[in-house]
Amino acid sequence: MKKILIKGLLILLLFVNTAFAAAPLSSWNDTEHKKAIITFVEQVTKEGSPNFVPPAERIATFDNDGTLWPEQPMYFTMAFVFDRIKALAPMHPEWENEQPFKSVLDGDMETFMKGSLSDRIKLDVATQAGITTEEYAQVVKEWAATALHPESGKLYTQMAYQPMIELLNYLRANGFKTYIVSGGRIDFMRPWTEAVYGIPPEQVIGSSFKTKLELRNGKPVIMYLPEISSLNDGPGKVTSINQYIGRRPIAAFGNSDGDLEMLKWTTDGSGAHLALLVHHTDEYREWAYDRTSSFGRLDKALDEATAKGWTVVDMKNDWKTIYVFEQQ
Amino acid sequence: MKKILIKGLLILLLFVNTAFAAAPLSSWNDTEHKKAIITFVEQVTKEGSPNFVPPAERIATFDNDGTLWPEQPMYFTMAFVFDRIKALAPMHPEWENEQPFKSVLDGDMETFMKGSLSDRIKLDVATQAGITTEEYAQVVKEWAATALHPESGKLYTQMAYQPMIELLNYLRANGFKTYIVSGGRIDFMRPWTEAVYGIPPEQVIGSSFKTKLELRNGKPVIMYLPEISSLNDGPGKVTSINQYIGRRPIAAFGNSDGDLEMLKWTTDGSGAHLALLVHHTDEYREWAYDRTSSFGRLDKALDEATAKGWTVVDMKNDWKTIYVFEQQ
Repeated sequence: MKKILIKGLLILLLFVNTAFAAAPLSSWNDTEHKKAIITFVEQVTKEGSPNFVPPAERIATFDNDGTLWPEQPMYFTMAFVFDRIKALAPMHPEWENEQPFKSVLDGDMETFMKGSLSDRIKLDVATQAGITTEEYAQVVKEWAATALHPESGKLYTQMAYQPMIELLNYLRANGFKTYIVSGGRIDFMRPWTEAVYGIPPEQVIGSSFKTKLELRNGKPVIMYLPEISSLNDGPGKVTSINQYIGRRPIAAFGNSDGDLEMLKWTTDGSGAHLALLVHHTDEYREWAYDRTSSFGRLDKALDEATAKGWTVVDMKNDWKTIYVFEQQ
Repeated sequence: MKKILIKGLLILLLFVNTAFAAAPLSSWNDTEHKKAIITFVEQVTKEGSPNFVPPAERIATFDNDGTLWPEQPMYFTMAFVFDRIKALAPMHPEWENEQPFKSVLDGDMETFMKGSLSDRIKLDVATQAGITTEEYAQVVKEWAATALHPESGKLYTQMAYQPMIELLNYLRANGFKTYIVSGGRIDFMRPWTEAVYGIPPEQVIGSSFKTKLELRNGKPVIMYLPEISSLNDGPGKVTSINQYIGRRPIAAFGNSDGDLEMLKWTTDGSGAHLALLVHHTDEYREWAYDRTSSFGRLDKALDEATAKGWTVVDMKNDWKTIYVFEQQ
């Protein structure tokens, strides 16, 4: 009795929701790529279909930089760290003569880009030294609410890709659990991903530093240690998916060679799957780059996508609008 | 129009669900501890209440061994590893003369328990050498479906605590997201937690080994490395919660000193919270132990609970039934 009543109500609710909902992916042009997405979703959600996947197993993983928002003229996480270094510089006069700090303070990208990964890590360590994870989250929130992109003049978060947000919503409306699996810092994303993408902190995976529980004035706090815990790029994305999610995704979305292993891992599962690359082809509305870019290089993964028939979104032709701010 | 219709239907659905639902926590006696749980849940879920917590922030973390199922006469994860060592022994004649393998094969718990943590890790490493994470999950599944507890003669998973499963269901019915945060191996729990506790793999956190993506016959596989990635006990539970969830729980459930930091972290948050310890007081139906036990020692946390007024469940008096199998 109870079950029948609930089922009836759920069906009615579903009907109302569907009848009134805007068409999905309305910022996408009606190309083969939009069709590929919709066909995949219809297949895995249709009960009785040979490709049906139970809701609990509908895991979708998204790269962030270059997939959900831009990564030019530099990774936005890097812009945050640069801003933070500048804000902290008055307390660190020694940085004026010390790399990589000097090149950041001088705005000398050419010198900075010649540095190593360990130079970049030095910046992270400097920005998180002596503050708790909760204080760091507050700093990120304030930056996300105020810092403007140098070219668009918009908030960085307003530059999130409208078509990808529609895609996230479309997948969630079809029972998918959406995750970010990014090479960027986990602590840099979590404070704003829920508001911008509808992805809660517990579904955000990224590179991270080790931490330690300490007492400060008798209260427990979590402090950063100056040691990388996980570099979440390339094969690291696959081992992180295993560590955090413990299931293989059935859909994965990326835009660069750092996403190649994640897409391969996804397509290597049994059953239906979707592997999608965002190709940055719009030099007017966004940026056009692939095989030789310093940020988001897309070379091997583009070859693999062509060979395997993955969906390669052509930003210029596939997207009616690019940014969230165009809708505001 | 759409919103009003959906809201009306949701209210109706909620009404039907509430009207027909069995009383929550029916395996719990009507003691102050059951009341403390219900009062907490009613406070945080009642809109307009000063203690209201939005659903997205209703995070509840549960220890596993001794909190959701027993840990006597030894941790069940240890029983699994022992069984695995015995199964693999014919391929490792050298184990007959090598500790800690010898004491496991001889059933000599006294000698084994004198060993160090690194001895226990040796067993883990031996059981996962050369197999993929997916093969390991299969081995765990088969064990969980067949291995019997030496005293009850029941499947280990049938010994899950019925009152705690009702508590998990009750919390989830009230919008909580329930997590396991255990000192046990993450890979040992994930294959069966969804079936037994209704907790999906992505909400299971535990101790883990580092892993590596490799190609085997041209297919990507994840292999274990012989190096601990995270020891998820004591302060490690708090840093893991930060790493995996990125939010502070509002309710935490444990039974031993290894849960103390997690409970402190939870109660130190702003707003309403619940900290609960399961005290093993029933020597007839379960086991009675606390301050001097080798498994699940409850000493400092019991003092802290008394001092802070945390909810300490008295298994003997608070629980009508103990095990899932009593209901089957």
